[in-house]
Amino acid sequence: MSTTTPPSPPPLPLTRTSVQAAHALIKPYIHETPLLTSHSLNTIASTPSSSSSANPTLRLHFKCENLQRIGAFKARGAFHALQRLLSTTTPEILRSNGGVTTHSSGNHAQALALAARTANIPAHIVMPSISSPAKIAATRSYGANIIFSGSTSSEREAVVSEVIAKTGAVLIPPYDHPDIILGQGTAALELQTQFQSQNPSSRTLNAIITPCGGGGLLSGTALACEGTNIKVFGAEPSFQDADDARRAFYSATGERISSVKTLTIADGLRTPVGEIPWSIIRGRKLVEGMYAVTEDQIRAALRLVYERMKLVVEPSAVVPLAVALYNEDFRAMVEREGGDEGWDLGIILTGGNVSLDTLGTLFTQ
Amino acid sequence: MSTTTPPSPPPLPLTRTSVQAAHALIKPYIHETPLLTSHSLNTIASTPSSSSSANPTLRLHFKCENLQRIGAFKARGAFHALQRLLSTTTPEILRSNGGVTTHSSGNHAQALALAARTANIPAHIVMPSISSPAKIAATRSYGANIIFSGSTSSEREAVVSEVIAKTGAVLIPPYDHPDIILGQGTAALELQTQFQSQNPSSRTLNAIITPCGGGGLLSGTALACEGTNIKVFGAEPSFQDADDARRAFYSATGERISSVKTLTIADGLRTPVGEIPWSIIRGRKLVEGMYAVTEDQIRAALRLVYERMKLVVEPSAVVPLAVALYNEDFRAMVEREGGDEGWDLGIILTGGNVSLDTLGTLFTQ
Repeated sequence: MSTTTPPSPPPLPLTRTSVQAAHALIKPYIHETPLLTSHSLNTIASTPSSSSSANPTLRLHFKCENLQRIGAFKARGAFHALQRLLSTTTPEILRSNGGVTTHSSGNHAQALALAARTANIPAHIVMPSISSPAKIAATRSYGANIIFSGSTSSEREAVVSEVIAKTGAVLIPPYDHPDIILGQGTAALELQTQFQSQNPSSRTLNAIITPCGGGGLLSGTALACEGTNIKVFGAEPSFQDADDARRAFYSATGERISSVKTLTIADGLRTPVGEIPWSIIRGRKLVEGMYAVTEDQIRAALRLVYERMKLVVEPSAVVPLAVALYNEDFRAMVEREGGDEGWDLGIILTGGNVSLDTLGTLFTQ
Repeated sequence: MSTTTPPSPPPLPLTRTSVQAAHALIKPYIHETPLLTSHSLNTIASTPSSSSSANPTLRLHFKCENLQRIGAFKARGAFHALQRLLSTTTPEILRSNGGVTTHSSGNHAQALALAARTANIPAHIVMPSISSPAKIAATRSYGANIIFSGSTSSEREAVVSEVIAKTGAVLIPPYDHPDIILGQGTAALELQTQFQSQNPSSRTLNAIITPCGGGGLLSGTALACEGTNIKVFGAEPSFQDADDARRAFYSATGERISSVKTLTIADGLRTPVGEIPWSIIRGRKLVEGMYAVTEDQIRAALRLVYERMKLVVEPSAVVPLAVALYNEDFRAMVEREGGDEGWDLGIILTGGNVSLDTLGTLFTQ
């Protein structure tokens, strides 16, 4: 087995055109997930919570990435990164070099494992040994080689470095990588096309809101909307300062906050925003605003998606809906900007990977 | 208020053409629900449970009526029955005659309430006073007038008769009515069109399987498939002889079994099959076969739909999937008929109206 990492392709420009190219590349491997609406959620979103509250008119359009392969949008970025890699090397070379690697205990682990298996390339996934048995089993079910590590990021990174040194495997990080960002942006592209085919041409999509954890999806969405007049917003939990991107966004310097320690129930959003995503979100000002919600607001939105939309989603996925329903600053802004006609708002429901036990606990709290 | 029931429209012939006409009539009021596939469920369905078990090749196509308005396919029948009524009378006349009525504690109650509210016509829904508060609240939320009754069918029917005598309201029964049957059949029509647009023209849909409670959906599906070469199958729970239609189907006389007493977890399928549905299913032989599954098999299928498909469904909705995955007779038949190429099988996921508490109980049993 060689231990030389194969060459990476030259990076693509971070533009809408590159997101379109990414979409063409991954289309055979991903689902075009449905864009759904809900009369009852539109009614709730367009009703003020009290007589003195904001009173926006909102028509919500849900891009159901919980119905994506591996149950989350992360399949898009992983398939894109791998297909891009295969554009400058061959499966044989990648195979003889030990394939690909990453460290993740979440959806990116499963996404990379699936993308690698589809191309018949080995994937080495470094997971903290304290990961839940369900997540380990899910990642293993896609044929990945699991390597356990300690749970701090330095312990995890040390193990990944060992894997790379030993095998020459190519590192595919979860969000801080141009190909990942461009892949995640394809969800917003589909959303735009689906909105147009479902609505009269006189209506235009006003905005899209996505969660922001590492920022791969939010920055990809911003690229997918550049030059379209569709505004892009980010949503975060506020619990234990999980809203690092929101705080940095509105700070004078706009400097990225690189460390976050939170146990929000929106467990996909516990990470600080990454460097490249941040350069798009704040540096290039492609995101219009950032909003945060409480744990109770996330729980209430979660319940509504189960009861009214009949969809299984993970807590992180409903953070944007919680903003649309409960964040008074956001709602006052929509009322002001949208006026009587209101807004058509795209919401990316990012994923549905949650154990049935966890759900039980969430709904009885 | 008048107490004369307005004239009903002349009945439509029970044909595929009438289902197409029904679809044109209700299209503005219903969702075209997505048709979804799942790689992992296809793999499970195409893997024998043991070395001596049947080994069919199955590609499953799920028609997601849990994402329909009111969370179930019943919206189709209710909108159709009401629109048909409005073809020979006016909303004003229906309003002055007290609107529409039915007795139901389930999805038909909500469906009729919604259809009536959409046309601004009163709906009087007779519900047993022991109905769950959640179901009463849901029906009331669609603006219906709820009238409580005892829980036996004679007690319920007595109250409905009183309502009709007092108000002249038109009875819209849950399944034993041509307009309801034709409305429910529209789900299978959409399924056919969606399958064709998602698959190469060389592939054809081989069969559709639906649950069978009162038989409105199964018989409507059979009409929607008449003359198309698509085979239609029905699925029932076997617990406490809930499989009345299956038993009657394979009996020498083919006589309908008109009384069933079961507490299967598939609570939408506790009713015996109705007369008109039965005349289509067995009388006209438009259904190819009937299959039953155990409570444990229903529970296992339910868990798979939550975990792999990320959809909230009620137990009744997964009975056909349980047949496809676990009924050895069905699977042996598909293996025999489908051969190496296998079958493309449409599955109607009928609804998602289940309380989060009930779910917790189901998954911990």
